Amino acid sequence: METFYSEHQGLHAPAGEMFGGLEVTPFDSPARADLVLEAVRGLGLGAARVADDFGEEAILRVHSADYVEFLKTIWDEWRASGREGDVQPTIWQSRSMPGRMAAPRDPDGRAGYYALAGETRITSGSWKAAYWSAQAALSGVRALEGGARSAFGLCRPPGHHAARDQFGGYCFLNNAAVAADALRATGVERAAILDIDFHHGNGTQQIFYERGDVYYVSLHGDPEETFPNFLGYADETGRGDGEGFNLNFPYPPGTGWNSWRDGLREACRVIGEYAPGALVVSLGVDTFHNDPTSFFELRSENYLEVGRMLARLGLPTLFLLEGGYDLEALGLNVGNVLRSFAEESRAG
Amino acid sequence: METFYSEHQGLHAPAGEMFGGLEVTPFDSPARADLVLEAVRGLGLGAARVADDFGEEAILRVHSADYVEFLKTIWDEWRASGREGDVQPTIWQSRSMPGRMAAPRDPDGRAGYYALAGETRITSGSWKAAYWSAQAALSGVRALEGGARSAFGLCRPPGHHAARDQFGGYCFLNNAAVAADALRATGVERAAILDIDFHHGNGTQQIFYERGDVYYVSLHGDPEETFPNFLGYADETGRGDGEGFNLNFPYPPGTGWNSWRDGLREACRVIGEYAPGALVVSLGVDTFHNDPTSFFELRSENYLEVGRMLARLGLPTLFLLEGGYDLEALGLNVGNVLRSFAEESRAG
Repeated sequence: METFYSEHQGLHAPAGEMFGGLEVTPFDSPARADLVLEAVRGLGLGAARVADDFGEEAILRVHSADYVEFLKTIWDEWRASGREGDVQPTIWQSRSMPGRMAAPRDPDGRAGYYALAGETRITSGSWKAAYWSAQAALSGVRALEGGARSAFGLCRPPGHHAARDQFGGYCFLNNAAVAADALRATGVERAAILDIDFHHGNGTQQIFYERGDVYYVSLHGDPEETFPNFLGYADETGRGDGEGFNLNFPYPPGTGWNSWRDGLREACRVIGEYAPGALVVSLGVDTFHNDPTSFFELRSENYLEVGRMLARLGLPTLFLLEGGYDLEALGLNVGNVLRSFAEESRAG
Repeated sequence: METFYSEHQGLHAPAGEMFGGLEVTPFDSPARADLVLEAVRGLGLGAARVADDFGEEAILRVHSADYVEFLKTIWDEWRASGREGDVQPTIWQSRSMPGRMAAPRDPDGRAGYYALAGETRITSGSWKAAYWSAQAALSGVRALEGGARSAFGLCRPPGHHAARDQFGGYCFLNNAAVAADALRATGVERAAILDIDFHHGNGTQQIFYERGDVYYVSLHGDPEETFPNFLGYADETGRGDGEGFNLNFPYPPGTGWNSWRDGLREACRVIGEYAPGALVVSLGVDTFHNDPTSFFELRSENYLEVGRMLARLGLPTLFLLEGGYDLEALGLNVGNVLRSFAEESRAG
């Protein structure tokens, strides 16, 4: 299994984020990618390669052009207007201010129009980092197109919270959505996205909610109890052509391996029946018991079984890094999924 | 003209707010009320009285019960959950996460559900301060009911951004809306609210948007260019019974006295034609050229003319303090409006 990454992904490194009403050191940091890269190299899984540049075409099939333009330009606009920090929205289009469906000129208004959350700041390097994170995912798509059984896009910043035209939850471009859509463009008739990050992938769900050709399945913390709070409920099953192709498994605080594994088993069964031509795994390991952002109780050894269960699906599989914020265990836990997947694939 | 205030209003005093991507000292502070009280006392306008307690009835006719409950309880919930700062929303119900119309249990989700902006934190004393700010407004209503030509509710925190069930822009309870609705309840057939704060009073507009018995007229910075960005456009004219009873005058950066005065003249003409039984003035003086939050160019002497123009309407008039963040000129500018109003009323 080859790994794809880019050093440019480290260019997104805000100095702080709001958490619990205080400014704290961001949970998502460039160090995360470094730790995972080191772990993957240590496992001897396969080459770790610098991502190729596939341009913006695949990104623009998933994200709107005005949103991409916003990501490229807002930091400069923000600073040119005299604002002295990084871009953080403080006003948004709330339900008490409906109707207007265009971004205002004011940088504060623009930031809020394109934001779905307020912990994520846009810095001078955020666009470039997000662009290369998506290229890492697209490099993995090409590996699968070339016949590889699996690949790992070491994406950071993560992607699954990014909606068609909104950023938040540390995400700017939806790497999993870009990859799944790109897989379709390579001739894969149906694709599935299995999202095992602790948080619901609201962006991925939104992007494919009315499409039947990409099945989105997610196991996550109940949004009644955690981010992103407003999407990811069990009764969200898709709409129009997408009806029946969105499946959410929300779990309560304290959920441990046995319950979660039963959900994963059911998710794998559903995906198997769908019989996609390829699988994208939104691989977050913030399901870990010691993760500072979550309330699940998985242990490092559980991730070995996750890899095996996914391998048994027998599908061309693209792993993309999402969350996971316990830096001590991050490399081990991601590595456990990937190595057991690879071992089981060889065995099977 | 009597002034009404409460010392409890100072209990809302967050340590910081986000502005331009940095944490800064909040523009809205208890000192604002102290400065205005001192200025009003210096003018010898009339007695400055402690507000009476009218309870929650009038508040609950304007704000939803669940929102009021949220304001009362969220800070304790937030802290009990282990969050260490004051309440600041970082996730909200964005247009990419539609559909869910109830607050999640998670304190972050609850805060975001009831928020329309992110610069405003809820502290341990915010509810009590907001409650008493509304009581100051209601005390002014009673003065008018008792036959006074005018009264001044020295409200702080301000109110006009607060929507039926959302806080933001330093506002929690919409004092102007509570007062206008209370005036109606005293038997005033029609009320008008004239909002001359630099920022559009999105909350007041929202609350009365479908009502024809309270005419909302506002002069403000074009929301394309400033807070609240998503409401306050000229084409918002009311709906249903309220159609034709909402009038916005958005002005561009650099707007000075002459343009603004022409708008005020037109606003007064329209209100005169409506012939309300009472007028509520949302009195912000952040239209001042040196205000740190605005881009208008009014001078201190202009506020004298504002007071005279309002007096010539000949209506029972309740002034309620909204914004104004240049602390050096705040007392003078508010005082200029009130004293010239009082002088012109006596002359006329």
